[in-house]
Amino acid sequence: MVNQSNFLKQRLSSVILMIEVEVKASVNDFAAVTDKLINIGAVRIKKEHQTDVYYNAPHKDFGQTDEALRIREIPDDGEKRIILTYKGAKMDKVSKTRKEIEVDVFDAENTGLILENLGFIRVATVIKDRVIYHFGKFIVTLDTVYNVGKFVEIETEANEDEDTGESIKKIFDIYKKLGIEDGFERRSYLELMGIV
Amino acid sequence: MVNQSNFLKQRLSSVILMIEVEVKASVNDFAAVTDKLINIGAVRIKKEHQTDVYYNAPHKDFGQTDEALRIREIPDDGEKRIILTYKGAKMDKVSKTRKEIEVDVFDAENTGLILENLGFIRVATVIKDRVIYHFGKFIVTLDTVYNVGKFVEIETEANEDEDTGESIKKIFDIYKKLGIEDGFERRSYLELMGIV
Repeated sequence: MVNQSNFLKQRLSSVILMIEVEVKASVNDFAAVTDKLINIGAVRIKKEHQTDVYYNAPHKDFGQTDEALRIREIPDDGEKRIILTYKGAKMDKVSKTRKEIEVDVFDAENTGLILENLGFIRVATVIKDRVIYHFGKFIVTLDTVYNVGKFVEIETEANEDEDTGESIKKIFDIYKKLGIEDGFERRSYLELMGIV
Repeated sequence: MVNQSNFLKQRLSSVILMIEVEVKASVNDFAAVTDKLINIGAVRIKKEHQTDVYYNAPHKDFGQTDEALRIREIPDDGEKRIILTYKGAKMDKVSKTRKEIEVDVFDAENTGLILENLGFIRVATVIKDRVIYHFGKFIVTLDTVYNVGKFVEIETEANEDEDTGESIKKIFDIYKKLGIEDGFERRSYLELMGIV
């Protein structure tokens, strides 16, 4: 409370409660995928460097419950974005669809310290370069994950009550257009790293 | 991740890891205290309306461990501040000195949803009007806590390694100057409300 005079902060509320409908595929050749993304009219939005610190819980094993808790740092051009994210268990057998709740925070270190003081345990750091395309209401990302590999993720969002089957079907249609018909991967990067 | 295009956010990092050295006293008459605050040269900073939502943990009872986890909302003039705070157990027998870690967040609702999805349980809401004075490196607050009462808190901060005894002594000196020599209260507002 001592800093209560230090108040001139500009911020923006970020309310996101959604179901993340998402399918991931292991891909060797980004060049071919990039060509096809341009051909179908996807729009390149940006490239990001992301550092994700994952935590496990003191009272259950997120590896077992299929939940995740993460602090993501994205150092943008001069301005860092920091996001605390909770992910619920996957909701079907084919995609990575799950509940996702996120909130932007002002400081990664103190957010981590609060989690650690609450008993959460830092288990892994995932670092990646992510190139982001938009295609209609879908987001296509080309991830180069350090020490793991290259992956294409396609995702969209749904309301909590919405049927996600149609979105998943459309995601697989886009994969087909990108020439990707196998290599689908439901395991998280943490699982692929052998950490959970 | 769907909102990754929604990026133009202005924010400021807030790094606060400190020991909160704090003594609280139950007070009937704010008018007399206010007069004395002015006499000793304390500076009135502002008045705030604060809404604090407290959580208990899924794996231990903060009422037993003397920890606290809180989301505070302060709707300032047009601009709301939202703070997630962890408080460690009290560190001595006379004051409320304890470790405090806080981080400003962009959204109270999603922060609460993340805590609840992690298994934390919302246990109470404390609402108060707080008038804040600065007196040297001390902060004096006059709290009118809804359904609880009126309290004067005097606090300062210390580094994690610092001896807090001298600060506590100075705090009691200030209480004396304010004409407050009894009514000291180590119980939290939650405890006074009979919630923990």
